[in-house]
Parts: sequence; structure tokens; C-alpha cells
Amino acid sequence: MMATPDHGFDADAILTREEKDLLGVLPVPLTAYYGIQTQRALDNFHLSGVPLSHYPKLVMALAMVKQAAAEANHQLGYLDETRLGAIRHACQQLVGGEHLDQFVVDMIQGGAGTSTNMNANEVIANLALEHLGHAKGDYAHLHPNNHVNMAQSTNDAYPTAIRLGLLLGHDDLLMSLARLRDALADKGEAFSGVLKMGRTQLQDAVPMTLGQEFHAFATTLGEDLGHLESQIPRLLCEVNLGGTAIGTGINSDPRYQHLAVERLSTISGQPLVPAKDLIEATSDMGAFVLFSGMLKRLAVKLSKICNDLRLLSSGPRAGLNEINLPARQPGSSIMPGKVNPVIPEAVNQVAFEVIGNDLALTMAAEGGQLQLNVMEPLIAYKLFDSIRLLTRAMNMLREHCIVGITANEAHCREMVEKSIGLVTALNPHIGYDNATRIAREALATGRSVLELVLEENLLDEASLADILRPENMIAPRLKPLGR
Amino acid sequence: MMATPDHGFDADAILTREEKDLLGVLPVPLTAYYGIQTQRALDNFHLSGVPLSHYPKLVMALAMVKQAAAEANHQLGYLDETRLGAIRHACQQLVGGEHLDQFVVDMIQGGAGTSTNMNANEVIANLALEHLGHAKGDYAHLHPNNHVNMAQSTNDAYPTAIRLGLLLGHDDLLMSLARLRDALADKGEAFSGVLKMGRTQLQDAVPMTLGQEFHAFATTLGEDLGHLESQIPRLLCEVNLGGTAIGTGINSDPRYQHLAVERLSTISGQPLVPAKDLIEATSDMGAFVLFSGMLKRLAVKLSKICNDLRLLSSGPRAGLNEINLPARQPGSSIMPGKVNPVIPEAVNQVAFEVIGNDLALTMAAEGGQLQLNVMEPLIAYKLFDSIRLLTRAMNMLREHCIVGITANEAHCREMVEKSIGLVTALNPHIGYDNATRIAREALATGRSVLELVLEENLLDEASLADILRPENMIAPRLKPLGR
Amino acid sequence: MMATPDHGFDADAILTREEKDLLGVLPVPLTAYYGIQTQRALDNFHLSGVPLSHYPKLVMALAMVKQAAAEANHQLGYLDETRLGAIRHACQQLVGGEHLDQFVVDMIQGGAGTSTNMNANEVIANLALEHLGHAKGDYAHLHPNNHVNMAQSTNDAYPTAIRLGLLLGHDDLLMSLARLRDALADKGEAFSGVLKMGRTQLQDAVPMTLGQEFHAFATTLGEDLGHLESQIPRLLCEVNLGGTAIGTGINSDPRYQHLAVERLSTISGQPLVPAKDLIEATSDMGAFVLFSGMLKRLAVKLSKICNDLRLLSSGPRAGLNEINLPARQPGSSIMPGKVNPVIPEAVNQVAFEVIGNDLALTMAAEGGQLQLNVMEPLIAYKLFDSIRLLTRAMNMLREHCIVGITANEAHCREMVEKSIGLVTALNPHIGYDNATRIAREALATGRSVLELVLEENLLDEASLADILRPENMIAPRLKPLGR
Amino acid sequence: MMATPDHGFDADAILTREEKDLLGVLPVPLTAYYGIQTQRALDNFHLSGVPLSHYPKLVMALAMVKQAAAEANHQLGYLDETRLGAIRHACQQLVGGEHLDQFVVDMIQGGAGTSTNMNANEVIANLALEHLGHAKGDYAHLHPNNHVNMAQSTNDAYPTAIRLGLLLGHDDLLMSLARLRDALADKGEAFSGVLKMGRTQLQDAVPMTLGQEFHAFATTLGEDLGHLESQIPRLLCEVNLGGTAIGTGINSDPRYQHLAVERLSTISGQPLVPAKDLIEATSDMGAFVLFSGMLKRLAVKLSKICNDLRLLSSGPRAGLNEINLPARQPGSSIMPGKVNPVIPEAVNQVAFEVIGNDLALTMAAEGGQLQLNVMEPLIAYKLFDSIRLLTRAMNMLREHCIVGITANEAHCREMVEKSIGLVTALNPHIGYDNATRIAREALATGRSVLELVLEENLLDEASLADILRPENMIAPRLKPLGR
Repeated sequence: MMATPDHGFDADAILTREEKDLLGVLPVPLTAYYGIQTQRALDNFHLSGVPLSHYPKLVMALAMVKQAAAEANHQLGYLDETRLGAIRHACQQLVGGEHLDQFVVDMIQGGAGTSTNMNANEVIANLALEHLGHAKGDYAHLHPNNHVNMAQSTNDAYPTAIRLGLLLGHDDLLMSLARLRDALADKGEAFSGVLKMGRTQLQDAVPMTLGQEFHAFATTLGEDLGHLESQIPRLLCEVNLGGTAIGTGINSDPRYQHLAVERLSTISGQPLVPAKDLIEATSDMGAFVLFSGMLKRLAVKLSKICNDLRLLSSGPRAGLNEINLPARQPGSSIMPGKVNPVIPEAVNQVAFEVIGNDLALTMAAEGGQLQLNVMEPLIAYKLFDSIRLLTRAMNMLREHCIVGITANEAHCREMVEKSIGLVTALNPHIGYDNATRIAREALATGRSVLELVLEENLLDEASLADILRPENMIAPRLKPLGR
Repeated sequence: MMATPDHGFDADAILTREEKDLLGVLPVPLTAYYGIQTQRALDNFHLSGVPLSHYPKLVMALAMVKQAAAEANHQLGYLDETRLGAIRHACQQLVGGEHLDQFVVDMIQGGAGTSTNMNANEVIANLALEHLGHAKGDYAHLHPNNHVNMAQSTNDAYPTAIRLGLLLGHDDLLMSLARLRDALADKGEAFSGVLKMGRTQLQDAVPMTLGQEFHAFATTLGEDLGHLESQIPRLLCEVNLGGTAIGTGINSDPRYQHLAVERLSTISGQPLVPAKDLIEATSDMGAFVLFSGMLKRLAVKLSKICNDLRLLSSGPRAGLNEINLPARQPGSSIMPGKVNPVIPEAVNQVAFEVIGNDLALTMAAEGGQLQLNVMEPLIAYKLFDSIRLLTRAMNMLREHCIVGITANEAHCREMVEKSIGLVTALNPHIGYDNATRIAREALATGRSVLELVLEENLLDEASLADILRPENMIAPRLKPLGR
Repeated sequence: MMATPDHGFDADAILTREEKDLLGVLPVPLTAYYGIQTQRALDNFHLSGVPLSHYPKLVMALAMVKQAAAEANHQLGYLDETRLGAIRHACQQLVGGEHLDQFVVDMIQGGAGTSTNMNANEVIANLALEHLGHAKGDYAHLHPNNHVNMAQSTNDAYPTAIRLGLLLGHDDLLMSLARLRDALADKGEAFSGVLKMGRTQLQDAVPMTLGQEFHAFATTLGEDLGHLESQIPRLLCEVNLGGTAIGTGINSDPRYQHLAVERLSTISGQPLVPAKDLIEATSDMGAFVLFSGMLKRLAVKLSKICNDLRLLSSGPRAGLNEINLPARQPGSSIMPGKVNPVIPEAVNQVAFEVIGNDLALTMAAEGGQLQLNVMEPLIAYKLFDSIRLLTRAMNMLREHCIVGITANEAHCREMVEKSIGLVTALNPHIGYDNATRIAREALATGRSVLELVLEENLLDEASLADILRPENMIAPRLKPLGR
Repeated sequence: MMATPDHGFDADAILTREEKDLLGVLPVPLTAYYGIQTQRALDNFHLSGVPLSHYPKLVMALAMVKQAAAEANHQLGYLDETRLGAIRHACQQLVGGEHLDQFVVDMIQGGAGTSTNMNANEVIANLALEHLGHAKGDYAHLHPNNHVNMAQSTNDAYPTAIRLGLLLGHDDLLMSLARLRDALADKGEAFSGVLKMGRTQLQDAVPMTLGQEFHAFATTLGEDLGHLESQIPRLLCEVNLGGTAIGTGINSDPRYQHLAVERLSTISGQPLVPAKDLIEATSDMGAFVLFSGMLKRLAVKLSKICNDLRLLSSGPRAGLNEINLPARQPGSSIMPGKVNPVIPEAVNQVAFEVIGNDLALTMAAEGGQLQLNVMEPLIAYKLFDSIRLLTRAMNMLREHCIVGITANEAHCREMVEKSIGLVTALNPHIGYDNATRIAREALATGRSVLELVLEENLLDEASLADILRPENMIAPRLKPLGR
């Protein structure tokens, strides 16, 4: 037994079996459930260092597709009962999370997903062989191509599995998003009595409550939650299984497409439907581009929120100092007592990563040619990665930051009282000219607007107190006609 | 009268009037309908060279917002009949396309749109003054801020106008897209009998028709059309008019918000509704990010289609040469007879520009802080620009390219007949082993698959002819059990 | 005379002449110096709305290339004295800035620059014809292709002109950058006595001077200036003139390449040299990608500086309020006295635009195929646009913002004195344990670090004053061994 | 011993030791060389799943920085001989590649690198303690902060380590690039006799050799090699070690900066120098932005080359079919004999990933504020990732593709002979009018240019043969005056 030098293992040192394909013979580790084509992919693609197994939902989806195809092929009379049983058993093991470590191919790969598809075909075939009492690699009894991949092409099985995997995976994302939104809404409640200065263009504007600010964070994430919930199934439920090589369904039974998709829908519990134009569906990456665009929007919003959290917690003395983020780790070895907003900072970086992922995916989508998009492995990689990153980042943000935020209520109110922006609220009562004059004088002298207004008898203390009651400043209020 | 050196005009050479604001006195061209604040913006921002007037729908939307606010203010008793009439008259002139040249501020500007809002306020005020028989600049009678901008802030009027302007503008986009899709679908019909090789990974795969290929182009664009039609109104119809400075509606009448939005909805004919969380709506750019993401998807699809058109028309001798694009201009001064695919090439570049616009917009959205996104002018600029570019590019592609495409039917069929990919169709009939052997022999000897199959008597001529009839190769076909 | 409906003009309404090319006959406005091929480009490409004339340095460079080619052709005996004289006269008019308005083709165009090249050829031919006393369009005497474009292809003349145009144009950029750096350095000097808190992660860190902060801005821009000055000529000076269609120099005289480039170098005063590998030089866009990357770096630095300026000037009461930016325009119609940092805000947006341009250019560079990059017009457009935007933005930033910045020295010092970060400076004198305890107590009680240190007699007033002298806190200082 | 639920391990199930910091007490796995602050980072940041240990050059660089600081501190009298010896021993173990698995913190992290710095400090302290015969965690003898991190801040040690790590790592990149260039140049030699059609805009242009095409690939990569070799050391050699917290060098000995950098330069063998403006150097990410821009250029060039390889090998029958890529894996389970260009496809995807990395890095650079760029961990991550991806991709491309490419010489020549583009070469001999007429007739009739020229006696066979000799068509050739 001889190993070419580019295998990922030393064929002399470990036990191997020999497998054969169109290009020749190759040793495969004896214990591996994957086979020769997976081994070739390992030899070819040593790039990202991220194997398929990092995204368990993709592996689960691949197994479901294989099971659905086998069931359809059996029902149409092309696959016997024994083989169906063995394939089904293997697929169910994978869906249950077993043998994940056998999915070893790099997420970045040439071949439009062929290596991923063959990794699944080979693992399932060998698990099935084992179940039937045969040795691994004894493909005469059950073959990765002829039986596991029957009536499929990578070009329909793989995109179908990606869509299904994304559908299976986005639940975690939505859960994480919903819980973050709720945590922000809770803070919106908790801080509803904290009056503070609103700021536009980083300049003092008019008063609001800290509760309104956190409530707005909750609202904006709630919009994304609603959009994702309503759009994702619509975007991803149409699958091209049955299109085979280029969407013409060549060499497939005309009944196969609908049957296979129906089985897959049942097995997965997802509302999958057959694509109407299989030629289009084989090469089109539009749903992925749009999905990534939605993830990018979420990233942008999270980044904006975290920028705000970092600004609002700046200080403690020479910053805005309106809120305190929970301390998660010592901030400095040289500056005693310094604690930094490390959690939002990490979320910002995740957001940038997701935006970078969106670009890589966009270029991959644009690079597709004719009847297939050969860059689909990168597209799948970037989508699964963005979903995972965002899910983890939102969990981290909620648990390690949002729930522990406290307000510096007295400081917030003091800023309002010292603020020149108060004149805006007085505007309808003392007139724009007086307001402008008072504003300038306050700025020049460092005195407070309230002081100056009282000194000039422009308003009495009671009126002033009434105007400046929080509930009167933070919402529209009827001003009498003619003022 | 003295002009500081940074005005865009020579104040000594042209007649000017003097206007005054918070910061002092400045000359303004006597004939200008805009006023001092617009002049300051001209002096400050000399950047993109693209003035507001390049996007007439934005100007129309600004005028509609001003009219709606005036009507609401009148109804609530804050604005008298005379001023309402004059303002309405001015707004209707602008909606009718008059005085577009008065919208002179650069699309890239600081101040979160204040300069755009003031450009509108000033032009409307001066048009109204003229209508009332007063001189331009005689703001004692009708004031840009006090009357035209009454109960508004840039921070609610401007985002509302952007959303409305996009709603007004996307009709052209959809029309252009629908017509392009139809033109492609027509070619799908016309080429339904042209048999050709399908290609995956740029390698010969299995046969299809040229009609299926163009039909898939139509399908993929049709999906975008459907998505845009259903999503855009949903995304953009929620406006923050009435939120004033930061969304608290400070200094506004509690009845104003709903009244103003209702008026605006009536005036514009668009299904606008008031935002539920005005604090959130004031700073949120999420709808724009998502809209831009949709435009990016459309750009990616157009680019992919144009890449394919350029590939399919490559040649005439040393390329694929399946289709001919209409000649639009001589291709070379040095190579006689050369004609190039200039139209798809230009569409590719538009697509890249739109993708670049999406990035600039994304960064602008991420850069918003606290109660306002100060980068909104760039966001508006990039969205209006992308819509215009895509609309023009799709019109160009349809008119100057798609409708004139012809097929090289004989060459297409010859490629199929010479192709090794034919063996795939023979696979179920001669077996995978025979097919692989024939494929290799054909490749090695340069002979055709058909020839070899006949020579070996693997199939008779009649069967072969039947299998290779177009209608049999381009769709699923029942193969007998056991083959 | 008949006009097809897609011309940009109404051929019935204006006087036209008829011209003819490979594809047939077309009317051209009688007064136009451009000819039929330019007219076709106008009919084809109505996209960005930005004509060639927006970038005068590109037009100048085209004229210089044409003159250099004519002189080389004359010297080699292919072009007679009369025609050379007329062509040279025309080119010199264009270099002098005349007839810029005749460069009408859209910056986004198919054909890899053929339309731009032909626009130049036709305008020069007709100016030359006029100079010789012939009518426009009377090409028998002097032909746009045969004489003006002699021995050239778009594929060598156009990339050469882009490189030369960028070389001519980047002087303004460097001047603008140098002046901005100097203005920042001046502020570094002026603010060298202003002690303030330095901040890391938006948290109070240790003291520094405002002068150090502005000096760092100057340093970072100075690095870009140095890099651009040394790299740009190196990147752009190698031109592919003489390569003709694909770099093989087919149909050209072997002596032509060196002669033409030498003439061009002399005419332009730029250190141009012939490309060593003309095949590579014809399609390679690497220099443009790198140049754009440098402009992107500059944009990132400007954006960071402007973000800082906006943060440092936030307030006036509820922000950092360390510096004041000059007021350039009223900030709000609803909030009296509000003035916003509009100039830095506009620079941020320019930066995002430049980063978006870099992406569009990158995709265009990646999209090149085989012997030519057909997306070169977009590449040229984005580079000239980024240079212009950055030049204008830096001039604006300097004139309208930097030179007028003032410091709030007392507030800055007060922030230092109130700061907990002071303990870092006391660390070597009172020990890390004491420092940490003092820091916590200060934070909990709101009292100052100095107060607590004196109260506990950890240091006497004289020592404290000595440690906290600015010159002692803002630079390394020997601390005795053993402390 | 109690573990909070968010540790990455089950504290009940494994043996732990207890450590303490500013925020309290925490269990750490007993066998871990890292300590409490690393453990906090593990608890906080579970994001990318990519730990520091994936980038060994970064870990080596951290160890070198720590050793250099210890040596400088010893020389200045702040660190005793024993501790220096132990720290040096620990650092040298790490430089030798030992204990890499102890670098467990996620590459995406908040805190501007503090967790990375502390991971290094803690591992080194515990290795040193072990060397001195003490237990792990017994920091009274040798402390991660007080001794290993002495005179440093994360803000100077971490950026210095990144720069050094990149310098150490880019050798592999350059080696990989040089070998790829050489492999392409070898093919340029090997194919120097293969005449083929050059193509512009995907249309047949004029003849060239396949050797010229591969030579141009080598040239274009050679330019990048030269640029990287000359620029990278210049960009990265300036380090801010000694700046401590914000670049003022607070609490450090004035002699320390130069001494520490000199030690580091000696230890690493890299030409490091102290930054001139330490305030600027602490926050500036410009060198990283530029380096990433260079990597992006390389990615763009590789992508273009791979696009070309895929085009040139398209077929085998219905494509260009000029070259054959070595078969690396079976291409299809459904299409017998199909072999795909999987290696270039994977390179394209790596290129898109690198371009996406550049964007994420750009946004991180832009997001820095005031005296520090808190997004530096993402910047480091993306740079190390891009370098690794490109290195691996270039090795793969060379080994698995370039060296095995063969040419279809006969087919290439046949394409030239059948081509209409030949008329360009005949142009100077038969005149442009004849050439255009012949071109049109050839296109219309499908006959060859040569045939038509001979038939019309425009040239005799001998002249024709002479003109069409490869060496005459692929380079400039003197044409007699007057032709």
C-alpha cells in the first residue's frame, strides 16, 4: 500500500484501506467512514482550516436530503427495501449528531460542492454497510454514488441541503435575537423614569428618557426579528431537488422531483416546495444574497447599538457616564481600576466580520457562470458563519452586558438641568428670540438656562417646573394657539 | 455689499440681495429662490458635484412634505389661510417639475440633511412670497423656518421625504425591470427550439435549449420584481413626520403627527403611515440598508446575466459563438470587423457601482450615533443613484441588446452532437461502464460519441435518434425499471 | 437627414452633418467637434450622467498621448508635416483647457474605453481639420482613425492616458494633504500647553496634551503624504503605449514604442517609461488597485480624525467639550443656538464614498478576462472621482474647520484633575495597592483622587504638584529603582 | 470550589486551582498554564471559534516581545537575574513552538488585545514558575503583570507583537508567491511555441503565443512579489513598544523604549525601530490597512489568473479547450468522464474571502477612537488569516494545477488559422478596405480568411506564409513606408 505525499496522514504509520475511483487507487484511513473522494478533497483543499463538521445543521440537512432521496427512489421501485433501511439508519444517526467528526472537507473547496456531497454519500454508505454487516469500502453491496446519490447530482442535492440547513439553523438566531430584544425592552421599562439629554450630531439636543432610548433599541431589533421570521421561510423553502445536473432533470423519473421534495419536507418538518424553474433554481444564488443582506442589516443595527452603549458608558469622569456596563474583566495592567466595555467591543467586531462575509458572498454570487454557481461552497460557508457569529454575539451581549446595565440617574438629570438644550422646551413659552439670546448667554457665561430665565423673570418658578416635568418634555404637548 | 471669497459666485459681478441668519449676513444672487442657508451650504460643501436637482423625485417629495405640514398646521389653527395658499402654490410648482435648478446643494453634505431641508424651505418661501406679491427675501411676510418648516425638524421632514422620494422613484425601476424580464421571456420563447450544450463549471455538461436558458434569466429577474413590488412599500411606508428633533415630538401639537401623515398620504397617493416608535424611527436606517441589499441582489443577477451573454457570444471563431449580440458601435480601429459586447459590459460596470454604493451606504448606516444618523445624506444619495443607474442600465440592456439577440442554431446543435456530454443521456441505455469507456475514447481520439456508439452497436440508429430528440433530453424522462 | 429616435438630440430641430462608419450613417450636431463614434456612444450609454469633461486631467492626458503618437509617427515617416502640425495644434488647445465640453461620453461605458479614445480622436481630427481650413467631418484630409489614432489601439492609448492623467492629477491631492497636515501640526503647536485626559476604549486613561493629539493627526497624515509621494510615480510611470491591440505590438514599427513613450514623457514632464511585458501591461490593473488602496487608507485616517473631532467637540454641556469647531451654518430650525460639526460629518461621508469606490474598482479589476480588462472605464472613473473627492474634502476640512478650532483649556484641565486616571501617575509613588484602593473610593464617593491622597497623607502637596506637572505626566520619567 | 455556569469546563468534573484578580476569585483548570484573566476571556468570548493558537507566528512574536521587555527591565535594574532567567526560558519554549495549545483566547475579543496579552503573560509566568520549582498560580514569586508585563501596556506590547508576527509570517507568503511565479514562468517557456488567438472583450483579436500568456501571469505576480518584498519591512518595522498606555510612556524609564526595541530586534532578527510619534503609533492602523490592500491586490490577480485558466480549459468540445488542467478528482456522479477545474475554483473563493477580510479590517480601522483602536484584534485576525489563506492557495495552485498544465497545440493553431482576426495582420499588406471586406465575407460564408485572400490573389502563398509565421505575428514588425 502506497501513499502519495500529499495526504493529510502518514499512510505508513496508520492502518489504511484502499479505495478506487475514476482517477485511480488511494489509501484511506481504515477507521474512516468517509472514502476515496473525501480523501482526494482533503488532499486538494487545505485552506480555511474550517471543516464541514463546524456547521452541524448543514450535516443534518445533507443526511435528510439523502434519506428523502432514498425513500423516493424506493417508492418508485429503484432502491430495494434492504438498502433503503440501511441508508435510512445511517442518515438518522447523522441527524442525531453522531459521526459529525467524519465531515472533514474544508468549507472552502472547488467543485461546486461535489466534495461535500461525496463526503455525505461516502459516510452514509459506510455506516449503512456496517449496519448490514459488511466492511467499510465494500461498495459492491451498497455504493455511495449508485445508491446513496441515486437520482441526484451535487447540483441539486447540495443547494437543497444548504437551504434546509439554513432553515434548521436560523431558529437559534431568532431565539437569540428575541431574547436580546426582550432584555433591551426590560431595560426600557426599568429606565423609564431616568430623564437625560438626547443628542443629535453628538450635540446636546432635547430631553428624553433613558427608557425611551433602550426601548428604541428593542424596537429596532424587533423589526429585524419580524422581518426574518416572515421572510426566511419564504426565501429558502423553494428547493431544486430533482433538477439533477443542470435543472433539466435528465435521467430522472418524472415523478421523482415532487416525491423527493415531499419526503424531505416530511422528514425535516420544514415547508419545502419544488422550484418552478429548475434551470433557474440550479444556478440562482439570489436567496442567499438577500438573506446575507438581512444579516448585514442586523449586524449594522447591533454595531450601532454597541457604539451607543460604549458612548453612553464613557467616563467615568471625562465622558458621558450615563450608564454603567457590568465589569467582565480587568481593563488594564497599568491603569488601576480601569474597566472597559469589552462585550460591546466584541460585538462591533463581529458586525464587521459579518459585513465582510456579505461582501465575500456577494462576489461569489456574482462569479457564477452559465448553468451553475461554482462558488456555492463559499456562499454556504459565509452564511453559516454569519448566523453562528451573530447568534453567539447576541447571546453574549445579553448575558454579559445588557442585563447588568445600571443607570447613573442623578448624573443624567444634572446634565439635563445644566443643558442649554432646555431652551428648546421653553421656546413656545418665551419666544424664539428670547430663547436664542438666553442660549448664547448661557454658553458664554457658563450659567444655567434656568437661572437666567428666572433672573429675567421670563417665567415664574412654577411654570418652569411644570414645563420641565419629564412627562411634559418627552412627548408632544399641546401649546396654546397664538403663542 | 461684500462677498467673502468662498462663495460660488463673484458677488461684485452679479446682482445680489443680502440675507441674515444666526451667524450673520451674506449676499445671495438676486435671482435665486434659495436663500442664505442654502448659500452657506454651497460655500461649505463642494464635494461630489452632484446637486439635489439630479434626483427630481427627492425634490418632489420634499415639496409634498412641506405642503402636508402646512395643511396640517392650518387645520390645527397655526397657519393662516393666505400663507397656506401661497405655500401650497409653491409646493405644487415644484411637484410639477418647475424650479428644479434651484435645488443646488451637494448630495454629500454635513448636518444630517439640514441644508437640503433649508434649500426646500427657502425656495418654497421665496416662491410663496413672489406669489403673494412680495420681494424675494422679504421673510417678514412668510418665513422659511417659522412658516414653511413649522412643526418640523430636519430630523423628521428629511427622512420622510427620502422615503417618499424612493416610493415615487421605484416605479420607473419596476417598469424597467418588468420590461427587461418580458424581453428575456420573449427570447425564451423564440429560442425554445435551439438545442445546445449546458455547461457546469465551464465544462460541457448535458443538453438544454437556449430557450430554457433565456427563460431562466426571465424567471430570476421576475423573482426580484415580485420581491421589490411586495417589500418596498412595506419597508418605506412608515414615516417619522411629527417626531421633530429626536422623536419625542417636543413642541408639537399632539394631534399634528397623524394629521400631517394623513395629508401627506393623500397628496402623494402613497400608503404612508406614522411610525410607532418615533425615537427609533428618527435614527433607524434599517429600511435603507435592506432596500440597498435588494438593489445589490438585482445588480448581482444582472451582472451574472451579462457575464453569460458575453460568454455565449464570444468568438466569432475562437469562442462559444452560440448567440449574436446586435452591433452597437465599431469595436476596434485596428482590428477590421471586430464588434464587441459593449452593452453587457456597461451593465457589469453599473452592477459594480451599485455594489460599491451599497458598501458606502452600509458604512454610513453603521456610523449613526445616538438619536440621529448624521450620515443620512450619503444614504439618500447612494440609494437614489443606484435606482437611477439600474433603471437606465436595464433599459439600455433591453433596447440595445436583448431584443436584437439572434441564435446560431446550427452551431449550437453541432456542439451538442460533437459533445462528450451526450453520454450522460445514453447512460441509462448503455450503462455507466460503457458510457465512461466511450467518453474516454471520444476524448482521446477526437471522434464523436455517436459514431463510437453506433460502431460498437451499443444502440441502433433509431433508438439513438429517439434518445437524442430535444424534447427527450431537456426534461425528466421515465426510464424503465431495472436499466 | 434622418435621426434614429435614440439620439440625445432632436435631429429635426438642430442642424446636423452626416457621418459614416462601419455600421452605417448617422447625423451629428453640426457644431460638434466630436463625430459619429462619439455620437453612437452617447446613444448607447446614458448611465452615470458624469461625462469625461468632469475630469479635465484625463482629457489633457488623452491629448498628450495623441500628440506624442503623432510626433513619433512623423519621425518614423508615417505622418506628414502638415497633418502633424494640425494634430499638434489641436492637442495643445485641449491641453490648454479649451473645448473640454466636447468630451461628452459617459464615464461608465462598454468597449474598454474605445468610446473615450474615439471621442478624443474625433475632437482632435475636427479641430485639426478646422485649423487646416477644412470642414468638420471632412475626414479625407485628416482621419480620426488613420491619422490621429495611427499606430495606436484603444488598448494601449487609453490605459496610458489614465496613468498619465492620474499622475497629472495627484499633485492637487498631495498639495491638499500637505496643507491639511500643516494646519493640524500648527494646532499641535498651539495646543501644546493644554493638558487633557487621554482615553482608551472611550474610558478615561492617563493625561496627555491636546497638542500631542493634534500632532498625532499631523503625523499620521504625513505618513500618507510620504507614501503617496514616493509610491505613485513608481506605480504609474510604466505605460503600455506601443502594445497596440493585445501587447504584441502587431502592425507597429519596432522603433515606435520607445519613441512614442519618450515623446510623451517630454510633452507631459512625467517620468514615463515603456512597460517591459506589454502583454501583461495591457490587461493588468494592479497599479490601480494599489493606488485605490492607498486612497482608501487616507480615507480611513480622515474618517478617524473626523470621528475624533466630533467626539472632542461634543456638548457643549452634556459631552466632552474639549474643543470648539468653528460654526459654519445654523444647526437647527427647532433648537435655538445649536451648531453642528457639519464639516467633519461631510468628510466622513466622503470617506465612505471613497471606500465604496474602492470596492467597485476592485470588482472591476477582478472582472477582467484574458488579454484585456474591459471594465477599465469604471476603474478610471472611480480613481479620478476618489482623488477629486479627497482633495476637495481635505481643502474643506482645513479651511472651514481645522484652522478655526479653539480649545476649552480650563475644562480640559478640570477633567484631568477630577479624573480617577490620575492614580496611574501616582502608582510608582504610592504603590499599586494604595492606588487601586484610592481609585475605588474616588469612584464610589465621587471625591477626587488628589483630595483622598492628601487626606491620607500618602503624599505631601509639593510632591503631588510636582508629579502632576504636565511635563512630568506626558512623557516617560525616571522613577527611582526599588519603588 | 465553585464554578459559575459560563466557564468552558465543568469545574466539578476536572481538577482546578483558584486564582484571584481585581474582580474576584475563579477556578482555572489545574493543568492550565494560562490563568484567571485568560479564563475570564474564555468565559466572555465564544465567537469565531478560532483561538490564538491557529496563528503560531503571533504567539512566537508575543513571546519575543516579553523576552525583550524582561531583558530591558533587567538591564535597567528593575528585574532580577533569577526572574529574567525564568522568563527567558519560558519565552524560548514558546518561540520553539511548545505549549501552543495554551493560547486559547478567541481571535475575536473585546478589550483591544488585553486578553491576548494576558494569555501570554499568564502562560509565561506559569512556565517560569514551574522552571523555578514553584506551583502554577503561585504568583508571589513571579507575577504575570508585575514581572512579565513589566513596563508594558497591552497598548504597546500587543501592536508590537502583531507587527513582528506579520514580519515573521510573510516569509512563507513570499516563498509561496515566488514559487508560483516560477512555475508560471516555466510554463511560459514551455508554451513559447504554441500559437493561439488572443482575445479582447472575449472576442477574437490577434494572434499571440500561449507562452506569452503564461509569461504575463508570471510577470504580474512578480510585480507583487517585488512590491511586497520592498514594502512590508518598511511598513511594519516601526513599533510602539515603550509607549505604554497611550504613547506618552507614562511610568516608564526614559531609557526603556530604545533598549527594549533594540533587544527585540536582536531576538527576532527583524529590523525593528522605535516609532517616532508614539501617540500616533499607539492608535494608527494605517500600516495594516495598506498591507491588507496589497494582499487584496494579490487576491485580485490570482482570481483573474484562475478565471482565465478556467476559461482556457473550458470544453472539452463546446469550450475554448486551449489547455488541460490536471484532473484532481472525479467531477460528477451523473456525468461520466467529467473533470472540473476544482483547484482554480477554490483559489477564486479564497480571493473573495481575502477581499471580504479586507473590508472587515477596513471597518475595524475606521472604527478606532481617540488614543486607541479597540478593534485591533479583528485587524490582526483578518491579516493573519489572509496571509495563511493566500499562502495555502498559492501552494495548492502551483502543486495541484500549474505544474501539470498541458497545451492543446494543434487546436490552438487551428483556431488561429480559422480566425477572422488574422486579417489584422494582413492589414498593412492588403489595405484596410480589403481587410474589412474579407472579414465580412469570411463571417458571412464561414470560409477562412486565408482561403479568400488566396482566391482573390491579394497575396501569394509565400507572402502569406511569411506574414503568418508566429515570430512575425507576435511582435512589432517593420512595415515599409507607404503601405
